[in-house]
Amino acid sequence: MNNFTFCTPTKVYFGKGAISNLKEAVTNFGTKVLLVYGGGSIKKSGLYDTVLKNLDKCEIFELSGVEPNPRIDSVRAGVELCRKHNIEVVLAVGGGSVLDCSKAICAGVFYEGDAWDLVLDNSKVTEALPLVTVLTLSATGSEFDFGAVISNLQTNEKLALCHDKLFPKASILDPSYTFSVSAYQSAAGAADMMSHIMEQYFVLGSNIISDGLCEAILKTAIVNTKKVLKDPNDYDARAQLMWASSLACNGICSLGNTKSPWVCHGIEHEVSAYYDITHGVGLAIITPHWMRYSLNEQTVDRFCQFAANVFNVPYSDDKFKMANEGIDKLAQFFNEIGIAKSFSELNIGKEHIEDMAKHAVEFGCFDTAIRPLNVADVVTILNNCF
Amino acid sequence: MNNFTFCTPTKVYFGKGAISNLKEAVTNFGTKVLLVYGGGSIKKSGLYDTVLKNLDKCEIFELSGVEPNPRIDSVRAGVELCRKHNIEVVLAVGGGSVLDCSKAICAGVFYEGDAWDLVLDNSKVTEALPLVTVLTLSATGSEFDFGAVISNLQTNEKLALCHDKLFPKASILDPSYTFSVSAYQSAAGAADMMSHIMEQYFVLGSNIISDGLCEAILKTAIVNTKKVLKDPNDYDARAQLMWASSLACNGICSLGNTKSPWVCHGIEHEVSAYYDITHGVGLAIITPHWMRYSLNEQTVDRFCQFAANVFNVPYSDDKFKMANEGIDKLAQFFNEIGIAKSFSELNIGKEHIEDMAKHAVEFGCFDTAIRPLNVADVVTILNNCF
Repeated sequence: MNNFTFCTPTKVYFGKGAISNLKEAVTNFGTKVLLVYGGGSIKKSGLYDTVLKNLDKCEIFELSGVEPNPRIDSVRAGVELCRKHNIEVVLAVGGGSVLDCSKAICAGVFYEGDAWDLVLDNSKVTEALPLVTVLTLSATGSEFDFGAVISNLQTNEKLALCHDKLFPKASILDPSYTFSVSAYQSAAGAADMMSHIMEQYFVLGSNIISDGLCEAILKTAIVNTKKVLKDPNDYDARAQLMWASSLACNGICSLGNTKSPWVCHGIEHEVSAYYDITHGVGLAIITPHWMRYSLNEQTVDRFCQFAANVFNVPYSDDKFKMANEGIDKLAQFFNEIGIAKSFSELNIGKEHIEDMAKHAVEFGCFDTAIRPLNVADVVTILNNCF
Repeated sequence: MNNFTFCTPTKVYFGKGAISNLKEAVTNFGTKVLLVYGGGSIKKSGLYDTVLKNLDKCEIFELSGVEPNPRIDSVRAGVELCRKHNIEVVLAVGGGSVLDCSKAICAGVFYEGDAWDLVLDNSKVTEALPLVTVLTLSATGSEFDFGAVISNLQTNEKLALCHDKLFPKASILDPSYTFSVSAYQSAAGAADMMSHIMEQYFVLGSNIISDGLCEAILKTAIVNTKKVLKDPNDYDARAQLMWASSLACNGICSLGNTKSPWVCHGIEHEVSAYYDITHGVGLAIITPHWMRYSLNEQTVDRFCQFAANVFNVPYSDDKFKMANEGIDKLAQFFNEIGIAKSFSELNIGKEHIEDMAKHAVEFGCFDTAIRPLNVADVVTILNNCF
């Protein structure tokens, strides 16, 4: 086992009615609140009103309209609001994009320069406003981790800002808030959380605890996504997906393991930065192609373990056949839940492939991947996605 | 899934050389330190000197001689030392007993009455001194949880004090500090961490994540205990055991599950309170008997899952045969690693059985167990242990 440092100070309030903890969770830190949310679905669902009712003693300022793949412009706007109104605590109500944007705002307030500098260099983060979250989408795990992914449309960059100060202080996870999530977004969310696990799982040095946790989360996502697509109001399935997504990106699933460069995320961020596609959809398309490209003598046993323990593929003397069967089953699962099979279906062109591959390799550590990848390798994987 | 609230604010520094973080971890909270340790093994091993060297800028006071099954008298002595010297931070160096005693000290300092009151009623805990730990034994998980088990020899009671304020602020987990742990204590530690899991695992409502994590930790304990008994200096095996033990009692393994009353712990604490036996040994003797007594139509599927996923028992049409095979394999494992098979081997008498059973049922919620237990049931289980 490798050395590690681990701490998740976020307090999770999980379950039906968990919103009753909101008032205490927020007012612990102050009463001047920046409420951050997205396109307004929380108004339709009534959650917006519920939040305001619970915070009737607070002074609320708002930043709405945070985009999927949240943009640095929204972060800048939030920072300005915080400064103008002396905000004491940020409350993010939404999915991963709203939470990520809020995290960057929390850090940006304490940085004199432009918030994008922090994304490019996390050592510039010194302090952050306290963040409380109310989750409405099971996907990114931002509610229980210290990362934020921010897009810059000016530079075609989508990059992760990670810092210990960015853990939410408290996260309210009520699975019933995800009943209204569409089949499309539920599927994309499942692909996202599964990708978080697969990025950590496909390394050459792991341990039984990590493997058990990763395989359990993958199985949870597979079983329960099928259930919520049949019955969007299946509380127990929504609950298992929500908790799975929170654990998947927290780091606890790979403690002690060989470090992974999260290759599929690195590649997908490039595609999103150019084409603004849904993150989970991009990951679901890229992952099986990355797997096939990474399957070789050194990695085949790992793929066989994945096939056996996640998809119940029977052990076979032909290890490559078995490994490929696992990958096929994964691709098949993504198709079954309605995710596009290729970039072509998303109207993505090939014109930026070289640039995307170069940038991904430059910002990743792809030479440490289970099969080390250079620019030409990434170009091939991207081409295979069409 | 049931509702839950979850937060583990403890910062874990894991791995060889993690002691280099000690200075920062301690002096974050102050320089007047109460160093708590046990019978002096840390002096033999050199860890005592290493700790002092790392804290050369601190003023150190000492409480040594903390017993296995730590006693309320040691807690009282520690509280007195803290008050006398205006201690700012407590540093526990040792195994679960030292850590548990230190937790009770940390809380006791802020309570005007006798510290035993806190053990009897945790609502009396208001505040606690910050606690940093350096772990030397993989067993109880106290380094990553909020519980402390304290014994009172005057009243023949051994009870758990649990409170959010009792999480260590930081825990230093260097697996190489456990190289010198004897075969006997390594086996007892394994039994303890496995019991923590089995107490949580044997419920009628669980989920895939919880099951996966529990089964992985059980397998980790089984595989790696055998390894360390062969080679006490097997770093990787010691490391896996250490991290397994930290997760096993933290609560994360059973989030969302039906609540369990931790029956075997309740019973074992009674036995320890009268006979001061090694906690893990008592658990290893009691657990298989409790399992056999709890095996019935309602519970058999759970025991079959355990047999299959932990001990690779093949699926059988005769579910009870399969379930019993799993229990047999567990008992066999405990015997293989050198743990006594019965209370008789430990020279325990039968004279207190009625009292122990009554007290266990009174302080437990045994009617919520996988098979609900009354006093007569516990008497039978205890008798079966001879």
